[in-house]
Amino acid sequence: MKFFNVKTVTETLEVIAGEFQPNRPPIEVPLIDALEMVLAEDVRSGEQVPHFARSTVDGFAVLARDTYGASDSLPAFLDVTGRIEMGKEAAVRLMEGQAQSIPTGGMLPSGADSVVMIEHVEEVGDMLNVYRQVAPGENIIRAGDDVKAGELVMSAGQRLRPQDLGVLSAIGKTKVRVYPRPVVAILSTGDEIVPADKKDLAPGEIRDINSITIAAAARQCGAVVIEGGIVSDDYASFALRAKELFEESDLLLLSGGSSVGTRDYTEQVMQSLGEPGVLVHGVSIKPGKPTILAKAGRKPVMGLPGHPASALIIFHLFVAPLLQRLQGQKPAAYHQRIPARISRNIASAVGRSDYIRVKLEEREDGMWAVPVFGKSGLISTLVKSDGMVEISANKEGILEGELVHVHLFQ
Amino acid sequence: MKFFNVKTVTETLEVIAGEFQPNRPPIEVPLIDALEMVLAEDVRSGEQVPHFARSTVDGFAVLARDTYGASDSLPAFLDVTGRIEMGKEAAVRLMEGQAQSIPTGGMLPSGADSVVMIEHVEEVGDMLNVYRQVAPGENIIRAGDDVKAGELVMSAGQRLRPQDLGVLSAIGKTKVRVYPRPVVAILSTGDEIVPADKKDLAPGEIRDINSITIAAAARQCGAVVIEGGIVSDDYASFALRAKELFEESDLLLLSGGSSVGTRDYTEQVMQSLGEPGVLVHGVSIKPGKPTILAKAGRKPVMGLPGHPASALIIFHLFVAPLLQRLQGQKPAAYHQRIPARISRNIASAVGRSDYIRVKLEEREDGMWAVPVFGKSGLISTLVKSDGMVEISANKEGILEGELVHVHLFQ
Repeated sequence: MKFFNVKTVTETLEVIAGEFQPNRPPIEVPLIDALEMVLAEDVRSGEQVPHFARSTVDGFAVLARDTYGASDSLPAFLDVTGRIEMGKEAAVRLMEGQAQSIPTGGMLPSGADSVVMIEHVEEVGDMLNVYRQVAPGENIIRAGDDVKAGELVMSAGQRLRPQDLGVLSAIGKTKVRVYPRPVVAILSTGDEIVPADKKDLAPGEIRDINSITIAAAARQCGAVVIEGGIVSDDYASFALRAKELFEESDLLLLSGGSSVGTRDYTEQVMQSLGEPGVLVHGVSIKPGKPTILAKAGRKPVMGLPGHPASALIIFHLFVAPLLQRLQGQKPAAYHQRIPARISRNIASAVGRSDYIRVKLEEREDGMWAVPVFGKSGLISTLVKSDGMVEISANKEGILEGELVHVHLFQ
Repeated sequence: MKFFNVKTVTETLEVIAGEFQPNRPPIEVPLIDALEMVLAEDVRSGEQVPHFARSTVDGFAVLARDTYGASDSLPAFLDVTGRIEMGKEAAVRLMEGQAQSIPTGGMLPSGADSVVMIEHVEEVGDMLNVYRQVAPGENIIRAGDDVKAGELVMSAGQRLRPQDLGVLSAIGKTKVRVYPRPVVAILSTGDEIVPADKKDLAPGEIRDINSITIAAAARQCGAVVIEGGIVSDDYASFALRAKELFEESDLLLLSGGSSVGTRDYTEQVMQSLGEPGVLVHGVSIKPGKPTILAKAGRKPVMGLPGHPASALIIFHLFVAPLLQRLQGQKPAAYHQRIPARISRNIASAVGRSDYIRVKLEEREDGMWAVPVFGKSGLISTLVKSDGMVEISANKEGILEGELVHVHLFQ
């Protein structure tokens, strides 16, 4: 049965997309706290932006047809009948043959349809010499040009960027409904794992690396992290701690040893948390094959490889999209990848997706991806890398100079 | 004099790189708090990682030469003399003709030089039949393979990613010296600007957008933000508030109106803060020409355009690199830009850098950048965009299908 649960990268991503969704109801937060959170409502504007016609330059509000044919040698002559102040209503209606001075951003008076720039006029007493003609609408923004009343400004599922907060401010929406940050609990397992602050290591002991790398990566994806610590390879204590953390979190990540014994424990613990249980038992990928994905109730539980570098690659490939799902985020219309040429031949096995760590170099003839070699357990290889390149399951390798797409590490 | 201070984009970036540096001394923080902060020290490892040779598979530790020539039909026979436990010292020396069982990650016993995978052996009582030969070093990681003792693990100026925290954990470094987050104060000016939460706008009034967009963008760059609020176009109150905020911050951003009057005020206020004063007075760029950069003492002060979309583009181009400087960050070896083809012709004026907002579309024949049009004051254009494309000062425009590089908005 287990055998049939080994999946490809694409199949695993389909399971993630199909099985999981936000675990908790949306919350309302002040706009500034919503940065990088995911919108949980469609937002329509109750008003138009701007809500009055504005000048985009310093100059004089006019009727365009009063300026037709005006030139340096044959200026148009208008009466200056008012001065519009910033932030004030333009109260005096503009009539034919008239002009009113207006600052950038000032409100266009009724009757006017355009603005002549200050560089193209000369004020002589109450008279204005206009040396350049303007067209209706020139140098102004009309009411509703930015946002129309009733317009759908933003849809649920959008991760909020600075400019998105800006347009929400513009329509006076200072609180928004967003999906709460998912709570991710991380539990490291392994008899050899000791806390990172242990000073003198005994032979056989290894400092815990995954707790901090996975916590940091999860925070970058918008999660709140519970650091669950380390448990030994003892089924009872492992299962007990996992159960506690599962109940406190929206996603439980188990970073396990890669020995057969530990893998078996990890799987049993994941099954013990509830139905339907394990969905993906191994991914045909290198590195990261021993990845396990389960569902207990409606919540996901993932077993990551014990090697820190493999665990972080699996995080980028599967946990990051899972965290997007748990935040209700819509998939982007494009993937953020940098095209580059690979600097040397790399062999790969057909039927397995290989992920090669690379360093990017911007050379005179374009961008190059230089493979960073080293066994998959070495965290230092990831430190030297900018991102990774996939060699897809149907390829035997890639040739020097071939175009690849680099998935950047954050 | 002012005239000579109008600079190109490149010249402005050179001023930023040449004039500014971290304003405050480094601080020591726990590792997990250092995520995305900039390292202020060179870190050398005091130990080797791993500090003992480890197996990368489940199997049996052996002397490689004892397995030479072994095959399914002609296995090698070894004595099983021990079982290595995870996290424990491998205490029993391995002699010629012997094997010891070892889990993935277990410590290699002295005397052994390789590990045979469990799939390639059969245990019969105390005897081991080995069906595959291994080479010295096979299936093991040697002591120091990941990090050597005394090795320079990371240099000052590196922004810390999850994997960087991982390698620091691995060497037991749980506190690091980093540059403190720069404090950015933001002050909006303009008689027409009212707080975003004002419900019913009077004619001529506009809600404050820049305060939130610039605050959000600054946070994404690692800054701590002081929201300075809004001041009217009154020199005395503007100058007083600017002075207060300047003293509390490492970078003061003035988001001013674009009218000539307000621009003059902004410049006077910037000059009033101290010597040497204004360094860049206008950039030959569209949008964003009225950008002003000053230095008072050792601290930068910037005047951003009043239009929210222009202000945010200027933020990406100049404030983000300035914040990197203030955090002591080394420039990256590559720029994060997505190559794409432009979907239509765009004209531009020679002598001025134009920044075109674009949406990215991943089509069957590759990535396309589709221009998002609209006057530069419209914040909604930025919401519809994924990034921007530069038309450099020496070009008259770009042609449909031409390759461009998209600088992504965060």
